[in-house]
Amino acid sequence: MRVTSRRVELRSDTFTLPTREMREAMVAAELGDDVYGEDPTVRELEGMAARVLGKEAGCFMPSGTMANLSAIMAHCPRGSAALVGMDSDIYRYEAGGASVCGGVVYRPILNRADGGFEPGDILAALPGDVDDPQFAVPKVLCLENPANHAGAKILPEARVRELAELARRHGIAVHLDGARIFNAAVSSGVPAQEIAACADSVQFCLSKGLGAPVGSVVVGRAAFVREVRRIRKMLGGGMRQSGVLAAAGIVALKNRDRLAHDHETARRLAEGLAATPGVEVVSSGMNMVFFRVPGMDHGRFIEEVGARGVAVAELGHERLRAVTHVGVGLDDVDYAVEAVRAVITGTTRRAAADSDAVTAAGESPAAMTKPSRS
Amino acid sequence: MRVTSRRVELRSDTFTLPTREMREAMVAAELGDDVYGEDPTVRELEGMAARVLGKEAGCFMPSGTMANLSAIMAHCPRGSAALVGMDSDIYRYEAGGASVCGGVVYRPILNRADGGFEPGDILAALPGDVDDPQFAVPKVLCLENPANHAGAKILPEARVRELAELARRHGIAVHLDGARIFNAAVSSGVPAQEIAACADSVQFCLSKGLGAPVGSVVVGRAAFVREVRRIRKMLGGGMRQSGVLAAAGIVALKNRDRLAHDHETARRLAEGLAATPGVEVVSSGMNMVFFRVPGMDHGRFIEEVGARGVAVAELGHERLRAVTHVGVGLDDVDYAVEAVRAVITGTTRRAAADSDAVTAAGESPAAMTKPSRS
Amino acid sequence: MRVTSRRVELRSDTFTLPTREMREAMVAAELGDDVYGEDPTVRELEGMAARVLGKEAGCFMPSGTMANLSAIMAHCPRGSAALVGMDSDIYRYEAGGASVCGGVVYRPILNRADGGFEPGDILAALPGDVDDPQFAVPKVLCLENPANHAGAKILPEARVRELAELARRHGIAVHLDGARIFNAAVSSGVPAQEIAACADSVQFCLSKGLGAPVGSVVVGRAAFVREVRRIRKMLGGGMRQSGVLAAAGIVALKNRDRLAHDHETARRLAEGLAATPGVEVVSSGMNMVFFRVPGMDHGRFIEEVGARGVAVAELGHERLRAVTHVGVGLDDVDYAVEAVRAVITGTTRRAAADSDAVTAAGESPAAMTKPSRS
Amino acid sequence: MRVTSRRVELRSDTFTLPTREMREAMVAAELGDDVYGEDPTVRELEGMAARVLGKEAGCFMPSGTMANLSAIMAHCPRGSAALVGMDSDIYRYEAGGASVCGGVVYRPILNRADGGFEPGDILAALPGDVDDPQFAVPKVLCLENPANHAGAKILPEARVRELAELARRHGIAVHLDGARIFNAAVSSGVPAQEIAACADSVQFCLSKGLGAPVGSVVVGRAAFVREVRRIRKMLGGGMRQSGVLAAAGIVALKNRDRLAHDHETARRLAEGLAATPGVEVVSSGMNMVFFRVPGMDHGRFIEEVGARGVAVAELGHERLRAVTHVGVGLDDVDYAVEAVRAVITGTTRRAAADSDAVTAAGESPAAMTKPSRS
Repeated sequence: MRVTSRRVELRSDTFTLPTREMREAMVAAELGDDVYGEDPTVRELEGMAARVLGKEAGCFMPSGTMANLSAIMAHCPRGSAALVGMDSDIYRYEAGGASVCGGVVYRPILNRADGGFEPGDILAALPGDVDDPQFAVPKVLCLENPANHAGAKILPEARVRELAELARRHGIAVHLDGARIFNAAVSSGVPAQEIAACADSVQFCLSKGLGAPVGSVVVGRAAFVREVRRIRKMLGGGMRQSGVLAAAGIVALKNRDRLAHDHETARRLAEGLAATPGVEVVSSGMNMVFFRVPGMDHGRFIEEVGARGVAVAELGHERLRAVTHVGVGLDDVDYAVEAVRAVITGTTRRAAADSDAVTAAGESPAAMTKPSRS
Repeated sequence: MRVTSRRVELRSDTFTLPTREMREAMVAAELGDDVYGEDPTVRELEGMAARVLGKEAGCFMPSGTMANLSAIMAHCPRGSAALVGMDSDIYRYEAGGASVCGGVVYRPILNRADGGFEPGDILAALPGDVDDPQFAVPKVLCLENPANHAGAKILPEARVRELAELARRHGIAVHLDGARIFNAAVSSGVPAQEIAACADSVQFCLSKGLGAPVGSVVVGRAAFVREVRRIRKMLGGGMRQSGVLAAAGIVALKNRDRLAHDHETARRLAEGLAATPGVEVVSSGMNMVFFRVPGMDHGRFIEEVGARGVAVAELGHERLRAVTHVGVGLDDVDYAVEAVRAVITGTTRRAAADSDAVTAAGESPAAMTKPSRS
Repeated sequence: MRVTSRRVELRSDTFTLPTREMREAMVAAELGDDVYGEDPTVRELEGMAARVLGKEAGCFMPSGTMANLSAIMAHCPRGSAALVGMDSDIYRYEAGGASVCGGVVYRPILNRADGGFEPGDILAALPGDVDDPQFAVPKVLCLENPANHAGAKILPEARVRELAELARRHGIAVHLDGARIFNAAVSSGVPAQEIAACADSVQFCLSKGLGAPVGSVVVGRAAFVREVRRIRKMLGGGMRQSGVLAAAGIVALKNRDRLAHDHETARRLAEGLAATPGVEVVSSGMNMVFFRVPGMDHGRFIEEVGARGVAVAELGHERLRAVTHVGVGLDDVDYAVEAVRAVITGTTRRAAADSDAVTAAGESPAAMTKPSRS
Repeated sequence: MRVTSRRVELRSDTFTLPTREMREAMVAAELGDDVYGEDPTVRELEGMAARVLGKEAGCFMPSGTMANLSAIMAHCPRGSAALVGMDSDIYRYEAGGASVCGGVVYRPILNRADGGFEPGDILAALPGDVDDPQFAVPKVLCLENPANHAGAKILPEARVRELAELARRHGIAVHLDGARIFNAAVSSGVPAQEIAACADSVQFCLSKGLGAPVGSVVVGRAAFVREVRRIRKMLGGGMRQSGVLAAAGIVALKNRDRLAHDHETARRLAEGLAATPGVEVVSSGMNMVFFRVPGMDHGRFIEEVGARGVAVAELGHERLRAVTHVGVGLDDVDYAVEAVRAVITGTTRRAAADSDAVTAAGESPAAMTKPSRS
């Protein structure tokens, strides 16, 4: 098997390396002890994030997992429930933290094709009588926008509004997992502030497409963010001179329009793959392309394109995913398409030769898949 | 509205009053302090329950909720997951205790028409890689047999065996919520011990069809039951001279063949309702009849048959449920059918008169229903 | 070693067997399904308990452990702290339930000789700044009155008032573990209502000196008790026809003046033991006598008086404890003193004979003691 | 009040700013996605930390709080207990995380003058019978070395060995909160590896005296560290390109001998303060000086030296604390002593003038103190 030295990282936009500008900002950052609230760079980032999303205050976090966990815990007292998407990152890839740390019951709701929920499904999950002690009462509805698992879809605005109104009528807060909210904003032309308007709290990741090395921010009302900050400390997310991270985050946030470039490379990748015989593009949007290679075991496909320097990953539902980001140029995309084509052609040839081979049957390969977060 | 003094309680078999024999046994029981393990009557009940279900040991509990909660906690360390039916009593009506007290994540699985699960749905809920820390790893699969919400269905034996084998292959224990397991045994002719054979642990209720005033028993391997007993103490389920309750439980367990009578009255009730115009019997089995009254608001129906002394309840999915038990005779059933007929006839007449009335539309009434645990 | 058929149970008043009157009340009780709030006997007991203690409402519980646990959880949101006595039953013998089920941090305070706390010790346990997220903020102060470990002492009224005022000044509720509050009331002549007046919530046990087989009651304000009831359901303490237990509880509560008799037998026991050479009475009060047998290993002492039919137990701090109750008459007490005298005399004789024997030294026997909850 | 532009930060060594060497290392670091285990710089730091402390493996953490929390959770299953110092940072300043997130009961033990425990106090905290379900069973003993609250004392080696042996005899693991373990090693000349030898797990902070901006490391056996890593993910401590932080950490760890300089400045500070009339040096050790200013309210003292540019803090027990670190030179120390002298002299003069003034008495100022984590 041919091994290449070129490397095109398409598994996730979490793999981005900080840009030169970020590294310089990190070096130059004015710092303090943020556990005492004295790091000016962290404060600057928190304020900027709040402003950009139209909320009162923000709190810097070491990860999106802690951002979501703290927000859910701040919304949900012990013994209440969180309505989450059955396919959402929060429910599937965050280790059940709200149950473990918060005594909160996850109540998963079926994700529809657009990544959102049917109002009827929400209603069916509400207790008939909130005073009846046999029920855990929902206190937060978590939306994911854009919806990673739905194929990086932006939730339709009307649906979001309908769900938010429904939630409010039942005294349920709305938390938005906006890990990639700026991809949605740049892609749709709708300001992030408007996308966030439906939600009481929002978290977004600095370390995905925005390209910063570490961190997320939770924004919301000031009193809510104070509670989030309290929970962060308890979880161990209070950091000292975290301005070194926030400095890169500020650069990332300022340069968010750069995401348009990732969307362009992803479009080119989608087109290239769609034109490749043996590849079926399932969906694409923003900086992601979801596809299948029907004639080939996905594990082997990943290994073989990997040997050609192109890294992709499976993401549940027997789909492959390729994600573009700051480290991926147009020529990288062309190279990746070429590598896919070569692998499939090679396989087709071998398959013709091996037509007598018997596939060992067993449990569904889907179940054996290792879905990888974000 | 006519009010009657006769009362036919069909809301649930949890309403049974202890028989004369039980009351006498309670008075005569030999007692001790069970917190010190010195109540001989409790020990006798625990031993009898274990024998009847073919397990090593048993532990008496104040409720089915604590029985299920303790069993799940004994199977699931903090941070692991419990696979439960989306419509199961454990998931819907037990206040999320395993998340609150145990730091356990509920992972609900779609209940199929027979009350069981599709193996593929279980597989899809398993983590691709149990060593990947982003996943809460399932440690118990909870079956409910008979399945209350599926319309009191007995799970097909082959399906149970298939699910149990699947669970074991993945290192997952099987807990059986057999709240009404003896109804299933009496109804099917399959010994309870065989129904329980698939499971590592079983809980059953003494205070449902068996008719005892209070209590459930968890059975399983001796070491497991020791752990359950430890958890029971922490939850506050250790009771002193609980032999007074166990004495009634022993009588209940000995007389379990009596359940055949409840099944007969239920059959008669189902036939009577099926023959009543305006009533649609959805399903019936063992001591339960599920039905609808399509032409009438269920809340009003419940109120009006209630005024005639017949108590029924809604149980999710816009269904009404009538449950027979030791306090319901054949003539009570006939009386109940008569009352239903009278209510519907009266309503039909009024409806004809009110045909211009407009129904205020709002949220689905289903969502407004108060499902009642049973 | 001589074995007797007579049995004097002095280990705890939890061993009391229900009286004939209680058994008859249990048989005759009017019952209903208390999970639906329909058991009239439970309601009667709850109302009576609330009235007797001067509170708005009550909630029947399967145990004192669950009564305390539910009350602490109702006072303390997740992440807050409970101030408890270092030697209190709540902290030592209730398996840490508030941390496990409630995410509540126990903050133990040194118990002073009178069973209460020094205000300075409470102050030192309060966070310097409740807004500083590094601190778990106390939300309840748990008093135990009478204080079991202090030798069944009644807390001085002035101290209780001082502590309650201090708590209130800092926004901290007061919960009273009044497991034996009626012993205190009968012994001191102060009405239970006055003893309870300092507290926002009180729990007392029906199954200790009051003699009922099972149960405790939590009383407090109506909204608080609703929350307690919700938590009870989640823990699995919701019981069906629990009126059978409540009926005995009502008899127990009505006959509470009977406790005076237990105090008299305890006084006689204390005098008898004090007059026995080789016995050192440490303290006595109400229905308890704490003593030591300095010349003898306590484990062996327990075994030898046990062989004579007299059951006593160790209770921490290398003390033995004897507790009188409805099952102990004056002649039982005389018999017990005689048995103790015989054991010590026998031992002294053997000790004289064995004066060369060497005792194997090891870890302090205190640490090896098994304190038994009561 | 005179305000200066000079600033000597003595509140804590958590205030250190990264050195030029660290900043350069951060810029140059080779990075990857550490959530996928692909950040080479993080791996290097983890390996180095493990080697230096003589353990198999290490795991990088965003904070000491999370390091301690994850380690305690990995040692303690739900419902077990952690033996911790009553004055330890873990118990006092980490928000009770082990109870909230882990369902673990804190069992605080009196800290003796040397910062350690009396074996008898440990024994008294062990349950008489680990099989008795009324007890939460201890699974970890947490030592703090050096002990912050004891005045930065190094625990005597013999005591540590004795406690570790006692723990092991009872099946209890030993976790060492070695936040400043390298200060202890440099100060005593005992290699850190030897100090760590008694413990199953150790955490140390990169962001205190070592001077890195963010992070701690937990080390221990490989299987243990795997479990710690799993818990870290659930808590939200999994970070992406955390190599930027680890790079500074590597520099910090390599330069650990530099701590000798901080100890020298602290010695000079202690001498200067001891020679200042009106100052009482309580204790000093390594890079800390604990002192009192008996004639003056500490809050006012802090404010007045603060106005002169010298920042110190109170740390419980009515003591002031000054901590030296990489940002404090010998001349800074001399300046600080001068500022203290000036404040006290000024106060003495005013006090003489105000001798009629009456101090309003209230609750002990100690209780009102805001202890600050370090």
